[in-house]
Amino acid sequence: MALIVQKFGGSSLASAEHIRSVAKIVAQARQKGHRVAVVVSAMGGETDRLLDLAGEITPAQPERELDALLATGEQASAALLAIALQNIDIPARSYLGLQLPLLTDGQHTRAHIIKLSTAELKKTLEQEIVPVVAGFQGVSPGGDITTLGRGGSDTSAVALAAALQAHCCEIHSDVDGVYTADPAICPQARHLRRISYGEMLEMADMGAKILQIRSVELARKFKVPLLIKSSFGSDKCTWILEEDKRDMESAVISGIIISHNEAKMSVIRVPDRPGIAYQILSPLAEAGINVDMIIQNASIDGYTDFTFTVPKAELSTTTALVNEVIPKIGARALSTDDGIVKVSAVGLGIKNRPGVAARMFQVLADEGINIQMISTSDIRLSCIIEAKYGELAVRVLHDAFDLEINNNLNAIKQQKLDPPM
Amino acid sequence: MALIVQKFGGSSLASAEHIRSVAKIVAQARQKGHRVAVVVSAMGGETDRLLDLAGEITPAQPERELDALLATGEQASAALLAIALQNIDIPARSYLGLQLPLLTDGQHTRAHIIKLSTAELKKTLEQEIVPVVAGFQGVSPGGDITTLGRGGSDTSAVALAAALQAHCCEIHSDVDGVYTADPAICPQARHLRRISYGEMLEMADMGAKILQIRSVELARKFKVPLLIKSSFGSDKCTWILEEDKRDMESAVISGIIISHNEAKMSVIRVPDRPGIAYQILSPLAEAGINVDMIIQNASIDGYTDFTFTVPKAELSTTTALVNEVIPKIGARALSTDDGIVKVSAVGLGIKNRPGVAARMFQVLADEGINIQMISTSDIRLSCIIEAKYGELAVRVLHDAFDLEINNNLNAIKQQKLDPPM
Repeated sequence: MALIVQKFGGSSLASAEHIRSVAKIVAQARQKGHRVAVVVSAMGGETDRLLDLAGEITPAQPERELDALLATGEQASAALLAIALQNIDIPARSYLGLQLPLLTDGQHTRAHIIKLSTAELKKTLEQEIVPVVAGFQGVSPGGDITTLGRGGSDTSAVALAAALQAHCCEIHSDVDGVYTADPAICPQARHLRRISYGEMLEMADMGAKILQIRSVELARKFKVPLLIKSSFGSDKCTWILEEDKRDMESAVISGIIISHNEAKMSVIRVPDRPGIAYQILSPLAEAGINVDMIIQNASIDGYTDFTFTVPKAELSTTTALVNEVIPKIGARALSTDDGIVKVSAVGLGIKNRPGVAARMFQVLADEGINIQMISTSDIRLSCIIEAKYGELAVRVLHDAFDLEINNNLNAIKQQKLDPPM
Repeated sequence: MALIVQKFGGSSLASAEHIRSVAKIVAQARQKGHRVAVVVSAMGGETDRLLDLAGEITPAQPERELDALLATGEQASAALLAIALQNIDIPARSYLGLQLPLLTDGQHTRAHIIKLSTAELKKTLEQEIVPVVAGFQGVSPGGDITTLGRGGSDTSAVALAAALQAHCCEIHSDVDGVYTADPAICPQARHLRRISYGEMLEMADMGAKILQIRSVELARKFKVPLLIKSSFGSDKCTWILEEDKRDMESAVISGIIISHNEAKMSVIRVPDRPGIAYQILSPLAEAGINVDMIIQNASIDGYTDFTFTVPKAELSTTTALVNEVIPKIGARALSTDDGIVKVSAVGLGIKNRPGVAARMFQVLADEGINIQMISTSDIRLSCIIEAKYGELAVRVLHDAFDLEINNNLNAIKQQKLDPPM
């Protein structure tokens, strides 16, 4: 008998019928002899409904009240799921963050967890009652409701699994796992049965949109095995686990990811003096704008072009900030481009195989795709290219790194590596 | 400067626009120099939406979870109103029952208030911040969310006013006060500027549907002046206050009320033995069914008919229970009738004027209306009559007791009696 934390996302809880289905998933885990603690998101669409309501009152909402408002979504779905569980004779009790309590640092709308008290939860579990915890929410040291940011229920679930020393944390949504590429773009995309925390962090960051990135960081820190599952009837799933030395020997690349969230900005003809990068970027840092890639061209005649990427949603804010800087530093102009995508190859093998980058550039060149910017990490290689080539790039890279062919080999290997369930 | 508790009902908070209007009402009270504490119901329609959702999962909902679910309605409207207040530069903070805390006896769906802690509220008020308290909800000694029953926000508001020793408790809804009769039935109905707690208790019980009856009991106990107001622009309002000796001298009857919520049940040809009433009524008491009027006819040949009224909603449950008893007591049959109404005259003058009952019966007789059952209290006279005569009875009684004519006289008198605001 193991203790399992099951987290259900909004799409899994979008209606009364969905909630009844989720109750059956919990029942199945119990029938296998497991104890189950559940964490829920708000019902699909509910958070947006509440945000719309607040938006109709004023566009500038005080964060303390926004947190109190949004927390109702998870409270309602926790109560509804507890009702659905009891309806099929599974004892259940809903809990608010305030009731556990899940103590946070008090930063409204983006709080971090300080401490999760497990006394009440353990008592409930020992009585064979399923605790159904409202995700996303906690309480500040002063007793205010705080939320963990969009997707925060994933982080709540991992925190619960860590605090209860659960066997694993299952993340149920409408996604049945991680693929070597987006199947909608690349029909050959292969489902991965396991992936390392590190790879998942790089992939989630690229917009894989499977779970909140912070939850993967937390899972890695506390060594909580994560399982990505669909609540819509697929038997596939992906384990997110620690790196395994044996992984190094097989797949170099685990997946090809495309991100449409980037915009490129070039400050043209900047006088090439020390401190220019600081002058351009520090106002953005102060405004909380996350600059990803940065390139400074070689200087010609004492002038250079300074290029960087920011999230597309921040394009207009960034444009305003940079336009203020331009006259001060004596640059000529700002050019912006949101017609770009970032295509990335992610894999543990990258760090040990120097040829991987060269292969990536060659494959893109063979298709006549111009690489505008490049960035790398130990386990990631990313290229900014023109948006219209994005899908093509994913397909040719997927093919070039033999991601489809690894299928059988990996399936056998992974079977052996799966955690005991 | 006075401290005022303002309670806003669901109809006053039905949309973002309504919530912005309510914020202005709070602002007006502050502009007059008052400190304001606010209590809110759920947005109009929200409680029913949540009940429908739960009902789609199962008709039999565990009460602890139903409470946790329904409490989200008031939490959301409290946060939204706090947002709207801050948007017009009035500092505001929303509070859950759990946060104050408002401690209850833990009876889910019908909890009673044990203790309302005011430390946090007083601190907030002293900082000139408007506390916006989610009504209807509290917390059990064990930390569970409990609710005070439908309309419980009125009781929350009165409890708050009592605990804070507020000058008064304003109940804002779509009703601008108490009338001598329902204006939809009786166009001559006169608006009352004041009424006693006792009269209001009798009227609310009759279905005046202005506020939760428990809140009037609580207001009477703690001598909290209640003010019924409309948040939809009417300047009329009704004070609910202690009896004033001077009231005795003027209006005998304050209002004529009709209730459509009754059903009549007759157990036919019951052997007239001691204990029969107990045998018929005790199963109903055990089932929590509230029996109102009871009549036992004079015995003929050792048999009698035993007639009583129950809430219409309990008719089928009561029928089943009584049908079980009938063979045991040797009665012949049960006859039920839901085509009846209860028409009542309510007024402090009733207890000192023995002629009032006779006048009521005479007026109804003159119209050919048969009185099926009669019940009385110190300040109420009620008759069960055939439903089709209900509206006619209200009009002729309203006329017979000169309720319209009292208008000017009372208006002058009441002006003087109004509490200082």
